[in-house]
Amino acid sequence: MAANQGSSSRNTQSTPELRVIPLGGLGEVGKNMMAIECGDDIVVVDAGVMFPQQDMLGVDLVLPDITYLKENRDKVRAILITHGHEDHTGALPYVLRDLNVPVYAPPLAYSLIEVKLREHRTLRGHDLHEVDAGDVIQLGNISAEFVQMCHSIPDACAIALRTPAGLVLHTGDFKIDHTPIGGKKVDLQRLGELGKEGVMLLLSDSTYAEVPGYTPSEQVVSTALDQAIGEAKGRVILATFASLIARVQQVVDAAVKHGRKVAPVGRSMVDNVSMAIAQGYIKAPPGTVVDYKTLRNLPPERQVIVTTGSQGEPTSVLVRIANHDHHEIAIRPGDTVIVSASPIPGNERVVSRTIDNLHRQGANVLHGRTALVHVHGHASQEELKTVLNLVKPQYFVPIHGEYRMLVAHAELAKAVGISPENVFILEDGDILGVSTNWAEVVDHIDAGHIYVDGLRQWDMKSVVLRDRRALSREGFVVVVVPFDRSSGKVIGKLEVVTSGFVDASETAELVESSAALVHKSLDNDEGKPMEWSYIQSKVREVLGSYLHKQTGRRPMIISVAVEV
Amino acid sequence: MAANQGSSSRNTQSTPELRVIPLGGLGEVGKNMMAIECGDDIVVVDAGVMFPQQDMLGVDLVLPDITYLKENRDKVRAILITHGHEDHTGALPYVLRDLNVPVYAPPLAYSLIEVKLREHRTLRGHDLHEVDAGDVIQLGNISAEFVQMCHSIPDACAIALRTPAGLVLHTGDFKIDHTPIGGKKVDLQRLGELGKEGVMLLLSDSTYAEVPGYTPSEQVVSTALDQAIGEAKGRVILATFASLIARVQQVVDAAVKHGRKVAPVGRSMVDNVSMAIAQGYIKAPPGTVVDYKTLRNLPPERQVIVTTGSQGEPTSVLVRIANHDHHEIAIRPGDTVIVSASPIPGNERVVSRTIDNLHRQGANVLHGRTALVHVHGHASQEELKTVLNLVKPQYFVPIHGEYRMLVAHAELAKAVGISPENVFILEDGDILGVSTNWAEVVDHIDAGHIYVDGLRQWDMKSVVLRDRRALSREGFVVVVVPFDRSSGKVIGKLEVVTSGFVDASETAELVESSAALVHKSLDNDEGKPMEWSYIQSKVREVLGSYLHKQTGRRPMIISVAVEV
Repeated sequence: MAANQGSSSRNTQSTPELRVIPLGGLGEVGKNMMAIECGDDIVVVDAGVMFPQQDMLGVDLVLPDITYLKENRDKVRAILITHGHEDHTGALPYVLRDLNVPVYAPPLAYSLIEVKLREHRTLRGHDLHEVDAGDVIQLGNISAEFVQMCHSIPDACAIALRTPAGLVLHTGDFKIDHTPIGGKKVDLQRLGELGKEGVMLLLSDSTYAEVPGYTPSEQVVSTALDQAIGEAKGRVILATFASLIARVQQVVDAAVKHGRKVAPVGRSMVDNVSMAIAQGYIKAPPGTVVDYKTLRNLPPERQVIVTTGSQGEPTSVLVRIANHDHHEIAIRPGDTVIVSASPIPGNERVVSRTIDNLHRQGANVLHGRTALVHVHGHASQEELKTVLNLVKPQYFVPIHGEYRMLVAHAELAKAVGISPENVFILEDGDILGVSTNWAEVVDHIDAGHIYVDGLRQWDMKSVVLRDRRALSREGFVVVVVPFDRSSGKVIGKLEVVTSGFVDASETAELVESSAALVHKSLDNDEGKPMEWSYIQSKVREVLGSYLHKQTGRRPMIISVAVEV
Repeated sequence: MAANQGSSSRNTQSTPELRVIPLGGLGEVGKNMMAIECGDDIVVVDAGVMFPQQDMLGVDLVLPDITYLKENRDKVRAILITHGHEDHTGALPYVLRDLNVPVYAPPLAYSLIEVKLREHRTLRGHDLHEVDAGDVIQLGNISAEFVQMCHSIPDACAIALRTPAGLVLHTGDFKIDHTPIGGKKVDLQRLGELGKEGVMLLLSDSTYAEVPGYTPSEQVVSTALDQAIGEAKGRVILATFASLIARVQQVVDAAVKHGRKVAPVGRSMVDNVSMAIAQGYIKAPPGTVVDYKTLRNLPPERQVIVTTGSQGEPTSVLVRIANHDHHEIAIRPGDTVIVSASPIPGNERVVSRTIDNLHRQGANVLHGRTALVHVHGHASQEELKTVLNLVKPQYFVPIHGEYRMLVAHAELAKAVGISPENVFILEDGDILGVSTNWAEVVDHIDAGHIYVDGLRQWDMKSVVLRDRRALSREGFVVVVVPFDRSSGKVIGKLEVVTSGFVDASETAELVESSAALVHKSLDNDEGKPMEWSYIQSKVREVLGSYLHKQTGRRPMIISVAVEV
């Protein structure tokens, strides 16, 4: 790999002044949690959840493993939140249970976290603070300054950490939108000032580091939505992320212009829109945003519904509508559906299916592949280079991206003049030691993931997933053996049950022949007492080979002894 | 929906002269099989397999359901193959077992089918014919003319069917590449002639109907590969589809130019390349294409490996290399890996993971998102409009695409002047009746899918998939109840086994408490004799509610009676 060529002028004997530890990203390094350690102080940036990948069968959520922080709990001064998205805040209810430290968050993130902690009934006893861009918080020997950035949610901040070792700048998620909705732009001047002062280490968002040029401004989407809503003949149903407050503002603006009213539908959208209106994030003339009961009595050409389901989530309003499964809303001829989001990798098929089903019902569907109804919230290559050149850091670590994106961002950094030996591509759990004259990966800790599965949590070492994968492909066969341990003999009739293995029409015959086969193979040893472990392995071997020959499959085979 | 507004001047009493029936596409209408019926003759176009979607757990392949063809076997004259891709030929070994009719295929498809039938040991007794573009075959009252098209495999053809009702043109998969590799261009003149003669019905590829403009020529890829291979410092490893013969030719050309030799690695790539060289589809100076044993002794800067794995297939050579799991090839510093393919929808994550792992090992990786190392094989909007205007059909049916792509293609057809009431968006199993003066969907047959699972096949009505989905999320709990049917009593100790449900560390405790709970709940009825069905529902109810409360999960619960 091109980066990590080692230290510049390393003194292996010395202790690094600063340690940087990405703690959770599920393939996107440091996306969900990052720890910065200096002397006796640790500051944590973000505490987000990861969404399970398709092979994480049955898993609801994935959390960063905070073992290292718990082992060093006396040092942890605070968790600083860059912005209010789930993948940066969603682990707080779990993390704070084990590590009750102060949390500092910009206004919108603060409000969203408050709602979340209340839902988890863990609000009381927590030490949650609202901070504005420009605020500086002292945390042991580290001071943290929040710097205004711009992302697909309002109040996104970078965090500048002044440590005894030097200045560290963590960008959070960002893009440089010069004409954002809501008007809060990236504070380029402050980034430049910090750069002038001297940034020792820059950690910067790499999500779109493979994409050349600039990410389009939200204004492009405003224009497209205005046109789509203006031209729509009947109702407009727009689906996006519930957290994409700025998008709802754009919809409201277009609705006002074209004489429509807007109703949020679905719990998370209703909650977020009412919070955003109450706190001034969404500005709408009185009577513009109404509830669905009011909206549905208007003529279709005056209705706009905003809702969730842009990722094909099975229980979301849009997917229910697409599947003829919503209790109130059904597609009518003349409806326009706008899917105002890109599919997150892994969701492409379910999003496609949803769009197909909406088309089948006669909706006019606009989506990201056919109309400019969405732009994403991350900086492309020219913006990333702008930040690199404003900040001119001594050391650079690309974060928030899959490995190949980190590689692309590292290449950009070198292209703008950062010494290759000062650019480090880390993986979660790597500990990068940074000092004035050298930097190097000095250690690696186990930064695995914790799976949340219903009410339980388990770690990556668990065999549950392995078993589920096996069951998902070939099902199981359980053989019940009436067994007298004292005599070591099988007494009575074997029972076989199976599920997920063969079609029902074949099950009865296969169960019967399996039972007979196992019985016969154990009969061969009749007379001699048998160990249970012998029977188990015999059943697995005989039945496994028989079933594979019959079906080409190897189901999970489990034997149970019943004492008689 | 915008199309299907009904017939133009319909006579509901009359029998349509022609029936068009898409029979298999797994969401991409008619992609894998299409039947054209006229009087006593049925001609089938293509017989492909579908690749299972992620929720088709454990399924190896999906086949079209040919019940309708079997019910009308006396009418079926032939299966005509448009080109040699698996999704157009892969079902032949299965279909011909049930429906042994003549098969006509262009040269490369013919060779690939021959290999496939030999593998399935079903070659003997089949009636397989090679046809060239321009050939006409008489099939009952229908004559079929093969017309040269251009696609991502050589020898792709459209098929013009002259029926007593009128001329039907089926494009197959195509793009209009004016400078293709191998030189065989779309026969635009013949398409125009057919159009001039009068095409009653056009069936045309819709895969890229949402994409504006033109699909780039393969020449773009030649240029990019030439540059990449010319600039590479060490070995080049290029992964693509084994069937993408033209791509291998491009690699060979660049290798020759830059003094390298080429070795195919992996069974399907080795087989296809040697077949393609033997039959003249790949032209290479003697000694250019060598086996890997020869190649590996050359200096790195003279080596090019072509292999499979561009879709992240777990057992492919590239994925094995990426996972440090290949017996011969490991990434070395200086290697360039070229992923010369786009991920098929659903494969994005596994392809990303493969690219990330190659980067981690220090390879320089080029892929479709960052370099022009792949173009796809389907026509974009301007090409589709060109074909529509060359052919000027009376009726139009967009095929080979998900529903929204068919909608997009239908809009293109209307935009170039085809009467909206003559444009029909079908679903698999729809029967479109076409006559000189009217056309309409006249019927619908069950055109479900057949799942190939190991050695077995089952249809969509089977509960196997439902069970596998349940098992994949929450596992199972089997409760073994020693039960005396004659007295209706539970006698002895219950046993509980589980897998895929909770972590091993919790299993023992949960199994024990479950057994105790069930025992106790059945004890409440002690004295009274019980029916087994009562015990089953009691176990499911008591245990289901207990386990949900304990874990937040609802595993599959099965009780087994053991007679004692």
